[in-house]
Amino acid sequence: VAAPIDFYFDFTSPYGYLAAEHIDALAAKYDRQVNWHAILLGFIFKRTGQVAPMDVPLKGEYVIHDMLRSARYLGIPINFPTEFPKMTIAAARGFYWLQDQDPALAKKFAEQVYRAYFVDNRDVSNADVIADIAQNVGVDRAAFVSNVQSDPVKERFKNESDGAIARKVFGSPYFIVDNEPFWGADRMEQLERWLKTGGF
Amino acid sequence: VAAPIDFYFDFTSPYGYLAAEHIDALAAKYDRQVNWHAILLGFIFKRTGQVAPMDVPLKGEYVIHDMLRSARYLGIPINFPTEFPKMTIAAARGFYWLQDQDPALAKKFAEQVYRAYFVDNRDVSNADVIADIAQNVGVDRAAFVSNVQSDPVKERFKNESDGAIARKVFGSPYFIVDNEPFWGADRMEQLERWLKTGGF
Repeated sequence: VAAPIDFYFDFTSPYGYLAAEHIDALAAKYDRQVNWHAILLGFIFKRTGQVAPMDVPLKGEYVIHDMLRSARYLGIPINFPTEFPKMTIAAARGFYWLQDQDPALAKKFAEQVYRAYFVDNRDVSNADVIADIAQNVGVDRAAFVSNVQSDPVKERFKNESDGAIARKVFGSPYFIVDNEPFWGADRMEQLERWLKTGGF
Repeated sequence: VAAPIDFYFDFTSPYGYLAAEHIDALAAKYDRQVNWHAILLGFIFKRTGQVAPMDVPLKGEYVIHDMLRSARYLGIPINFPTEFPKMTIAAARGFYWLQDQDPALAKKFAEQVYRAYFVDNRDVSNADVIADIAQNVGVDRAAFVSNVQSDPVKERFKNESDGAIARKVFGSPYFIVDNEPFWGADRMEQLERWLKTGGF
């Protein structure tokens, strides 16, 4: 069996949203599984000394334009959120709690969080909104709410964050397959050629 | 006649090199001309408060890997230069002096500067190397050497730099067509769809 694709994403990353809409279908064409990893770019930017692209003069303005155009290019619905970025730690912790029980359900939850933010302009930093989304995909709301705040889940998320840095993940979306790293939704074509040819 | 594509590039930018190898052929398919503009990223990064990607922890390492893989993906020869980046002000000034006489010759010169650096590992910060390249594409060497240092050419380059910032150019390669900006060699597919459809 071929190795899975590791897919790192931040819930507040528009290009992460664009990648999340496609990565499983792309992988399935080449009989690969995808392991999803929620990360927090705020944490990673701090550790790697990066400034968010949005905060760089001229670039910030361009990036908003580009993410909207990239969504149109890919045929993915997007509405730029009124408040950007957001702290999405509750969503990330909830994602890992679900993943340990049912990875497919965790992906479904992640997709709905992304759409809530980038299509429906909901406040994904709000723990109640996140619990609503979990409930809507069939999760027990009370169990979700209590577990997201639990020490084991906090620890699990911390370990994932450290693991992402250890694997040199510095942005979102970020893919690693066969030890080959790909950064950006715009590297999915190179990723596809990699899967098709076994490396180039 | 459709408006030309403005193409901004830095001679020390690997992705600028990748774009330079393709942009005229792409534009020609859609009956567009390309106006080339040499810029200095060092100057632009300073003005926009940017850190070079190479100097960001983790990202710097990835970017070298990515530029080499992107060249293979596009089928363009590349050897990563021993010394990177380089100050390419002599090449940029020479480019504008040539452009005022013969834009096609200036492009030919620019292509050869890029290949000298990214294929043959020559020191393109050295004025003698740049004069050799000019001579090899048929330029009068003595006239080139004296004019590159002249006040009108220095002024011309300064005006181009200010003009690039005024048009919000913050990186290389950068394309503007019909007032639509595209940043990166990896946006040439979106640029192509723009040319094909008249905007999307």
